[in-house]
Amino acid sequence: MSSIDYDLSTLRGVAFDVDGVLSPSTVPMDSHGVPQRMTNLKDGYALQLAVKCGISIAIITGADSEAIAQRFRGLGITDIYLKTKDKLPVLQDWMGRRGLETHEVAFVGDDIPDIESMQNVGLPVAPADADPDVKDVACFITRASGGYGVARELLAEILKAKGLWMTKDEDWFQ
Amino acid sequence: MSSIDYDLSTLRGVAFDVDGVLSPSTVPMDSHGVPQRMTNLKDGYALQLAVKCGISIAIITGADSEAIAQRFRGLGITDIYLKTKDKLPVLQDWMGRRGLETHEVAFVGDDIPDIESMQNVGLPVAPADADPDVKDVACFITRASGGYGVARELLAEILKAKGLWMTKDEDWFQ
Amino acid sequence: MSSIDYDLSTLRGVAFDVDGVLSPSTVPMDSHGVPQRMTNLKDGYALQLAVKCGISIAIITGADSEAIAQRFRGLGITDIYLKTKDKLPVLQDWMGRRGLETHEVAFVGDDIPDIESMQNVGLPVAPADADPDVKDVACFITRASGGYGVARELLAEILKAKGLWMTKDEDWFQ
Amino acid sequence: MSSIDYDLSTLRGVAFDVDGVLSPSTVPMDSHGVPQRMTNLKDGYALQLAVKCGISIAIITGADSEAIAQRFRGLGITDIYLKTKDKLPVLQDWMGRRGLETHEVAFVGDDIPDIESMQNVGLPVAPADADPDVKDVACFITRASGGYGVARELLAEILKAKGLWMTKDEDWFQ
Repeated sequence: MSSIDYDLSTLRGVAFDVDGVLSPSTVPMDSHGVPQRMTNLKDGYALQLAVKCGISIAIITGADSEAIAQRFRGLGITDIYLKTKDKLPVLQDWMGRRGLETHEVAFVGDDIPDIESMQNVGLPVAPADADPDVKDVACFITRASGGYGVARELLAEILKAKGLWMTKDEDWFQ
Repeated sequence: MSSIDYDLSTLRGVAFDVDGVLSPSTVPMDSHGVPQRMTNLKDGYALQLAVKCGISIAIITGADSEAIAQRFRGLGITDIYLKTKDKLPVLQDWMGRRGLETHEVAFVGDDIPDIESMQNVGLPVAPADADPDVKDVACFITRASGGYGVARELLAEILKAKGLWMTKDEDWFQ
Repeated sequence: MSSIDYDLSTLRGVAFDVDGVLSPSTVPMDSHGVPQRMTNLKDGYALQLAVKCGISIAIITGADSEAIAQRFRGLGITDIYLKTKDKLPVLQDWMGRRGLETHEVAFVGDDIPDIESMQNVGLPVAPADADPDVKDVACFITRASGGYGVARELLAEILKAKGLWMTKDEDWFQ
Repeated sequence: MSSIDYDLSTLRGVAFDVDGVLSPSTVPMDSHGVPQRMTNLKDGYALQLAVKCGISIAIITGADSEAIAQRFRGLGITDIYLKTKDKLPVLQDWMGRRGLETHEVAFVGDDIPDIESMQNVGLPVAPADADPDVKDVACFITRASGGYGVARELLAEILKAKGLWMTKDEDWFQ
């Protein structure tokens, strides 16, 4: 039923890079030349639903951005790692604290600094417009480009595999 | 003449979700991580024309945004419902106050929280890039993606069916 | 050589609508819901070159935007008409003051309020994503969509027809 | 292996225009009508990597923008020339100070003011959506449009030709 060749029902945690994944690769700058991230509201719906369904969600990014922190905190995500130069140790520390096994975790990345993390989880995922070398190590490439619904596409598949998508629950409504 | 399989001339009210319908799914964030909605100016032309022609227009959104309120108020729309967690009761209350029967109303939505409302109006409409389950319950799917002319496409069809599109009227000009 | 079926060398003036022509139809809003226009830098290069070559350029828009006024003034355009509800009288007044005959003028518009003006110039032009009724009255439809190089495409053709494109002139360089 | 018909391993310097190359041709304006540039984060990754690998990088633009200066300075680029009306003398001065021969330099431009500079380097490069006359003088046209990964595409090819792409180096990680 899913186009992903993985037993998605076993996934208990998903970690996301931000630039090129949850926000497009090309974004506005502020007057000091600082990239201003964008957000996809269908991603937002799926992320808060995943949190409510008990999926562990992590945001692991090199960016130092209060906007990113506040946006994802507002969706119920508590594990937000900014200014991360080397992502793999942060990912592994998060997996340890959340009690997640390798095969229970997906990592979504789009660029070279994400490759190492992708190689150390069960399901490495890349957006349609990821770096070619990143796509080579991904087991699933979303139809969506980075920032345009990547998290939505992946999380809908995972929650459907778990029978948690579209369950009638008023708390879902934003 | 229209590609919509519905007697559009019977429609007297149209209710719109905002995110993914009147504004794109992917938008900028401000420095606090709050999504900044965008607006389509051809939608704006059609919305103010529809109001002048006596069509009841409602904006029903989960968002809490002064920008949304002011933008649509400036187009002549008075029925603007922000911070709406559960849309169906708000929709039905609006229909009651405006004296609208189910078959006289269209609802345009793009995501899961819109489905219930779409199932309780005569003409459920979805943008081209709506969630697949939402598209399944829609009777009309616009060529436009959310934020890129969805309201224009629908309202032009409705006003044409009523013989109200392009009637010479200087007051039309913005 | 040009794909436009018109003797472009006779054109001495070009008037532009803004929303959907020089700026995209979908744009960001500020915190008060006011549309924030965008600008295309290749349009900008062609507009300032056209002014230097003696082509009369007018901006005729319903918008009330200091950003629009300052952007186009900075490109050397002096005839900027904001808050224009009824465009035809403004266009005709401008043509009179600049001594322009009907066949010497092009008007570029994308929506219903532009149709009347387009019907009263020699060369009516519309962007690729203009309203269908507007495209019906246009003699030339640009490959570019509104905001993504419409002025550049038209002005390059006009200046080429006049032998003024790419003439070596250091003053051209921005 | 590369699709570029040039011995990329001989390149020691790359100069970039900004508007239409590192930033899209269509951008937001601020309230004074000043274009607000955008930035691509995969370009950013490649630019800082190129600097670390010893490639000389220059930014040569007609724009007067503190955001541009700060963004590219933050990536390690020191040779940033703003408000450049005539680009060729600035390019040649930079090449002299950095000890770069013509065949060792690539210039990436998208519009008429870039042509002269492109004709005076070994490898002239243009984005997919560059002006047609600019594309005529380019030896390599990127798949990416201006602002959407042009620098990334070119620099990845150059660094691969030099055997410097994806070499394990923790300092690479942002």
